Amino acid sequence: MLTVELISVGTELLLGNIVNTNAAYLSEKCAAQGLACYFQTVVGDNEERVSMVLKTALDRSDIVILSGGLGPTEDDLTKETAAKVCGRPLVLHEASKTAIEEYFSRRGIKPTDNNWKQAMLPEGAIVMENHNGTAPGVIIETEKNKVILLPGPPNELIPMFEESVLPYLEKLTEQVICSQTVKICGVGESQAETMVKDLIDAQTNPTIATYAKTGEVHIRVTASAADRKAAMKLIKPVVKELKNRFGNSIYTTEEGVTLEQSVVDLIKANDFTITCAESCTGGLLSARLVNVPGVSDVYKFGVTTYSNKAKKRILGVKKPVLQKHTAVSRQVAEDMAEGAAEFAKADVAVAVTGLAGPEGDGDRPAGLVYIACSVKGTTVAEEYHFSGNRNKIRESAAACALILTRRCLLEYMSKVTFGKKD
Amino acid sequence: MLTVELISVGTELLLGNIVNTNAAYLSEKCAAQGLACYFQTVVGDNEERVSMVLKTALDRSDIVILSGGLGPTEDDLTKETAAKVCGRPLVLHEASKTAIEEYFSRRGIKPTDNNWKQAMLPEGAIVMENHNGTAPGVIIETEKNKVILLPGPPNELIPMFEESVLPYLEKLTEQVICSQTVKICGVGESQAETMVKDLIDAQTNPTIATYAKTGEVHIRVTASAADRKAAMKLIKPVVKELKNRFGNSIYTTEEGVTLEQSVVDLIKANDFTITCAESCTGGLLSARLVNVPGVSDVYKFGVTTYSNKAKKRILGVKKPVLQKHTAVSRQVAEDMAEGAAEFAKADVAVAVTGLAGPEGDGDRPAGLVYIACSVKGTTVAEEYHFSGNRNKIRESAAACALILTRRCLLEYMSKVTFGKKD
Repeated sequence: MLTVELISVGTELLLGNIVNTNAAYLSEKCAAQGLACYFQTVVGDNEERVSMVLKTALDRSDIVILSGGLGPTEDDLTKETAAKVCGRPLVLHEASKTAIEEYFSRRGIKPTDNNWKQAMLPEGAIVMENHNGTAPGVIIETEKNKVILLPGPPNELIPMFEESVLPYLEKLTEQVICSQTVKICGVGESQAETMVKDLIDAQTNPTIATYAKTGEVHIRVTASAADRKAAMKLIKPVVKELKNRFGNSIYTTEEGVTLEQSVVDLIKANDFTITCAESCTGGLLSARLVNVPGVSDVYKFGVTTYSNKAKKRILGVKKPVLQKHTAVSRQVAEDMAEGAAEFAKADVAVAVTGLAGPEGDGDRPAGLVYIACSVKGTTVAEEYHFSGNRNKIRESAAACALILTRRCLLEYMSKVTFGKKD
Repeated sequence: MLTVELISVGTELLLGNIVNTNAAYLSEKCAAQGLACYFQTVVGDNEERVSMVLKTALDRSDIVILSGGLGPTEDDLTKETAAKVCGRPLVLHEASKTAIEEYFSRRGIKPTDNNWKQAMLPEGAIVMENHNGTAPGVIIETEKNKVILLPGPPNELIPMFEESVLPYLEKLTEQVICSQTVKICGVGESQAETMVKDLIDAQTNPTIATYAKTGEVHIRVTASAADRKAAMKLIKPVVKELKNRFGNSIYTTEEGVTLEQSVVDLIKANDFTITCAESCTGGLLSARLVNVPGVSDVYKFGVTTYSNKAKKRILGVKKPVLQKHTAVSRQVAEDMAEGAAEFAKADVAVAVTGLAGPEGDGDRPAGLVYIACSVKGTTVAEEYHFSGNRNKIRESAAACALILTRRCLLEYMSKVTFGKKD
């Protein structure tokens, strides 16, 4: 079994300014690839110390993945140090230089002198393009080791790992690891755990693991085999069993489909349009919908009605309703949804109103949120009690708004289908 | 300066099942205590490997903090290994035995045989009580080192650190560390680096470090001294120099103030109201504003006008303008901002329209974004070229919309002030 070791380079990790999520991500991916990881190290941007830990790692592990310290500044010396330790001079890599030029010219700004440092790469190294930043990734192959250098920002590291490192590791390990994720919404993590405990206890290959996300639980089924087809054959019966157990709570078993994507798909399947009226979420729900490519066909318009005046003027919520029930109430959520549907001339409208905190309202605590969904004039509203800080409450509310919308659309569709059959 | 090194023991960290938040917590606390942390290591529950990394750490650091692996099971061997490495036999610690008995009797359950393992502690060690679990903490003092053993679960580790470890470290260090962060917007990371290179090169105490965020650069100035007052006295002239160099690009030097907070503060200072009209950002800009507590006084209403129809109907963008320039254009951004100001009756309006991708539009690539800001009828629009995936483009656009709004507000205020002087 090949061994892998992780070295995270960054003074901000040593100061505790950021949490090392890269290490968790890389460890998980390497484990899934059948690599044994026995050590992870964090070290600052210091040549002597990076050199020391890299030498130790090269002695005891086959593959060493370094992340961070590939930036353009003086501080960034991971590449320089790794090149020195591996005995490779740095040479100008023309393609990387061009990529950096293009990156800056797209932004209409001039690269500074230190940007060119990023195009100086170890001689003979495999270069991995960075589509989300300026630092290319590097793989140095020595007689005994593979040294992989990745940029530190997760939004650069993760895509580069998936696009370039994973295929490289697959070739090394001669083993294909496949996984399929069953994504569930509206079921709590411990409930989901309980529902699959017997499967987890009995697991060998494939393995089953659950992951909680705001409002969602993802169950990943992972199999290793000689090729993709054999791995998928192992996965299929487990996914089928999960479908039996979770039914309609599963919103997708497809790679890359998000909860918002599944809602937009249902909207499209009905030839509907959708609108949002947000108070405490203030645009988060809308932003999640707009994250779906091609949403413009079904989502034309949405509003953030933060003040009562806007709720009255735009959504037609009546003053006596606001006075009697207050802005954070089931009634106002319903009226907001119906008003939004009318104003936006949309088939489906979702409204959110609540107390995001930090303060509550009198004896009503922060975290109290009402969400309403109106589908073709039939409106459903629910009361929620979320915990956490202001941001967490708003994220939970946006997720639950998507879940409620999905539920209402499925209910609508089951009635329509039933009606058609009659 | 005393050095500290962290060793996290736990196979679940090596598998990526959990993120190492303990390391971030301990690092931050140690840095604040004036301890220099140069290395963190993660290792599995394996005697040979724990022994190896502990010996390395004892060689190069004064204080070594190990966390995890103090539990009652066979797997847990941190304490046994540390005792062996330090040459201390394990002896029964009566007070810990009693505490474990009491812990279980409070819960009405019987301890199992292996629970007594937790009362076997290195001879002569300082024992730290655990009020949230059964594993006591331990400090072993050798001639050269201090070895501190803490339980792994954060809800046990954190209280034990605050109650017992921190007072111990304060006595050791007789020193405090303070820092102040200067937050800059609208200046690229490498440009900012270049502007402070001489200060970084000359740094000793205080130290200067830069951190990049979307659209922002943060420069942290950190000093160590005998007390807080003396540390702040060292920091003050550096912050003053940074203010000279970056001027208006600095949006705050205060702890915890975000870019959106600084924009909302400017809006409030002018007794203004603000509104947003978003196309490609689809609510992200609005969501950032709403993340500021108390924003409801100035942000009443915003819209996501994703379709041309909505841009026409709500914002009054004229059909010929859309036809001539297309929806993604400087002219439409300007008209959106002015239309939004009028519709929302707001003093300030920000509009964003662009191509978030994944596809561009003909020969115009994804990432092309126009942002306009209208302050009391004076409208400024800018063209931007962002890269990255759909989400990254939208996040960059939302950040730049805040930066442009801040710039326009400052320009407005300088004119008003100038006008008053006349």
